[in-house]
Amino acid sequence: MGIKGEDTRQKIIDKAAELFLIKGFNATSIRDLLEATGLTKGCLYFHFKCKDDIGLEYLRQASEKFMLFLDQGLQGSSGVDKLDNFLIGAFTYHNSRDFVGGCLFGNTALETSDTAPDFAKLTAATFHQWRGKLTNIIQQAQEEGGVINNRTAEDLAEFVIATLEGGIMQSRLNKSEAPMKNCVETLRALLYTTKNK
Amino acid sequence: MGIKGEDTRQKIIDKAAELFLIKGFNATSIRDLLEATGLTKGCLYFHFKCKDDIGLEYLRQASEKFMLFLDQGLQGSSGVDKLDNFLIGAFTYHNSRDFVGGCLFGNTALETSDTAPDFAKLTAATFHQWRGKLTNIIQQAQEEGGVINNRTAEDLAEFVIATLEGGIMQSRLNKSEAPMKNCVETLRALLYTTKNK
Repeated sequence: MGIKGEDTRQKIIDKAAELFLIKGFNATSIRDLLEATGLTKGCLYFHFKCKDDIGLEYLRQASEKFMLFLDQGLQGSSGVDKLDNFLIGAFTYHNSRDFVGGCLFGNTALETSDTAPDFAKLTAATFHQWRGKLTNIIQQAQEEGGVINNRTAEDLAEFVIATLEGGIMQSRLNKSEAPMKNCVETLRALLYTTKNK
Repeated sequence: MGIKGEDTRQKIIDKAAELFLIKGFNATSIRDLLEATGLTKGCLYFHFKCKDDIGLEYLRQASEKFMLFLDQGLQGSSGVDKLDNFLIGAFTYHNSRDFVGGCLFGNTALETSDTAPDFAKLTAATFHQWRGKLTNIIQQAQEEGGVINNRTAEDLAEFVIATLEGGIMQSRLNKSEAPMKNCVETLRALLYTTKNK
């Protein structure tokens, strides 16, 4: 495929992205995609054989970008610094978007868990990678004495992700930063040992 | 409306309920509802003027039932007992359903926050009531010295709900009880004071 073809392919994914994020995958129609891209049906179907393929490619790209975001966010001189930079980074990102669209991976999890195995598998893999990265950081923080150690690093990583997903959901629903902010503040208050508070 | 009419109306809601929960509201079509109920289009539209009205009535009924479930679950001789019975009750309920469908209110929050204000308002009101009930229990537990008090009861109630919603999401996605179980166990480990562990 030439550069123009690649551009069109990417344009479809980018335009689809906002629709999927805000309306959800199921509620986005091929007609919506044609309107948003300005393409003909023939052109759209030249690049993707169905809506699922657009959704899966978008999810793949978003997952890759998210891993980069995580690697950039999980920086710092100690484990707690890294965890803290990530928590603040996640809040800042969603707050800057006024929580519109929420978390793509959380949305996809809820929309596809029981009905679309390909999407669910890719989403589960993204959460798995995310959990792995957080586990390493929390383990480091526990070894340094910065994070409580009455639960394993893996359990705490899973707990942090669940709490953030629920916090994003509540902030999005209430159109307010308060719920996610409270979740981040409470995580900090509960997980960090006294020397880091 | 006679008894038969009321029966049909309720039958539509009950059949719609499982479809909405598993497929999501947007992905459930009028055709799906006709197949599930065995009714004609004329009969369905006699009872509800559109799919939204079925969804809203279902959500209203589900919210009422959930408040009863909460009142039954939030029992015990102390605040911590009440909170613990609720946490275990929530896990037992979702586990008994193998996490199929997940949490209706969480699903609806993610599906409708940015697109369907009537649904979002009703869902937000349900979470608001839930948070109020949990806040009272946690406040009692804090006064009795059973729950940590470095965060307000209201903040902890919001935090508990967010964590449970995220835990249900992860268990549903991974088709495993482990994530939600870990969230409940971690909440117990972090929130209860030493005398209750």
